[in-house]
Amino acid sequence: MTDHPRAERRRGRPRHTVLTPQRITDAAMKIIQARGAKALTMAALARELGVSVSALYNHAPSKHAVLLRVQDRLNSEIDCSGFGHLPWDAALARWARSYLEVYARHVELIPTMAVLPVANAPHTLRMYEAVASGLVAAGFARDEVVNMIVVLESLLFGSAYDATAPGGLFEPGELEELAPTFTSAVDARTGDPAEGARQAFELGLETLLDGFRARLGA
Amino acid sequence: MTDHPRAERRRGRPRHTVLTPQRITDAAMKIIQARGAKALTMAALARELGVSVSALYNHAPSKHAVLLRVQDRLNSEIDCSGFGHLPWDAALARWARSYLEVYARHVELIPTMAVLPVANAPHTLRMYEAVASGLVAAGFARDEVVNMIVVLESLLFGSAYDATAPGGLFEPGELEELAPTFTSAVDARTGDPAEGARQAFELGLETLLDGFRARLGA
Repeated sequence: MTDHPRAERRRGRPRHTVLTPQRITDAAMKIIQARGAKALTMAALARELGVSVSALYNHAPSKHAVLLRVQDRLNSEIDCSGFGHLPWDAALARWARSYLEVYARHVELIPTMAVLPVANAPHTLRMYEAVASGLVAAGFARDEVVNMIVVLESLLFGSAYDATAPGGLFEPGELEELAPTFTSAVDARTGDPAEGARQAFELGLETLLDGFRARLGA
Repeated sequence: MTDHPRAERRRGRPRHTVLTPQRITDAAMKIIQARGAKALTMAALARELGVSVSALYNHAPSKHAVLLRVQDRLNSEIDCSGFGHLPWDAALARWARSYLEVYARHVELIPTMAVLPVANAPHTLRMYEAVASGLVAAGFARDEVVNMIVVLESLLFGSAYDATAPGGLFEPGELEELAPTFTSAVDARTGDPAEGARQAFELGLETLLDGFRARLGA
């Protein structure tokens, strides 16, 4: 801070903190979390940052570039540490659980991130390289590897929604008589929604890993 | 139409077509598809329908009630016809493929529908009853049934995004040297994005069904 902000500004000092990639990414995530991905425009982002649109364009060439940085930020938080150290299936499970944990904190970003091309996102590419290398080293065919990754990502994106669903998601309300068997199945499940979501994800993950192990043995 | 709209209106004739559940549901889906779920408010819906908010409230008690009708509309399109006729696994596969097909046409609705309580949605409850009855009749334990449904739904919600992703989703761009093994795996996959998404979903579905069959035998 200065005692003479106006005088400083006249000398060319920016009115706000310098635009850094970090600040731009923070602001973009804030807009998407609060108002959804369709609300993220370069104009809205400039407004959020308190700068002109042209100033923003000097630091981020496009909305796509901003989204890539968001994707890269999120994916840099995913734990790939098992690959090269643990058995492939333990490494894959650690990666998938961590990936779920990151996106369950950011479900608003899933619709955008799930379909965003990964080109030129360094953390994202390093993550996929770790997973693909681990699977190829384990003996999986190259043409299976991407489908295996996509299956696990599909499961965990869906599970991230489930992990954030309210309690009583499957309660039938006043129409129980339409669904007596389903209602008894719901009643037989744990009552804690977070625990139910965790159990369902683990069922999916373990079942897929069993199947992948069987393919490797075949 | 009448030659004297003003006179007609004074006699109490509504200015617009009568509000039906069908029209309200159509308009709600249109808003979510175009502007995202956060844009759906009772005020926005009334505007879209060309009626006052109070007129809308006479036909739909809440935004939640509107969303339930949207969910019920979508889920009424899902093919449950296999249960009670085909073997449980063939019925489950038909249901899951049809469910994916419906939501791949409406990915914008996934974030809302995946976490919307099903209470008082008759088509949705009938769908779950068909699935749960099929699985219980096949011999699955009641406390497994909901987790099995959740796993398949998670996979297919995630796969619906993948089915709508652009081509070249996994191309590394200018950073190929960061991910040589992953890039070779991407190159080994089919080039058609729709076919790639289909293959990945089928890998997930078949692997899960194999695992469920093994649980039933155990």
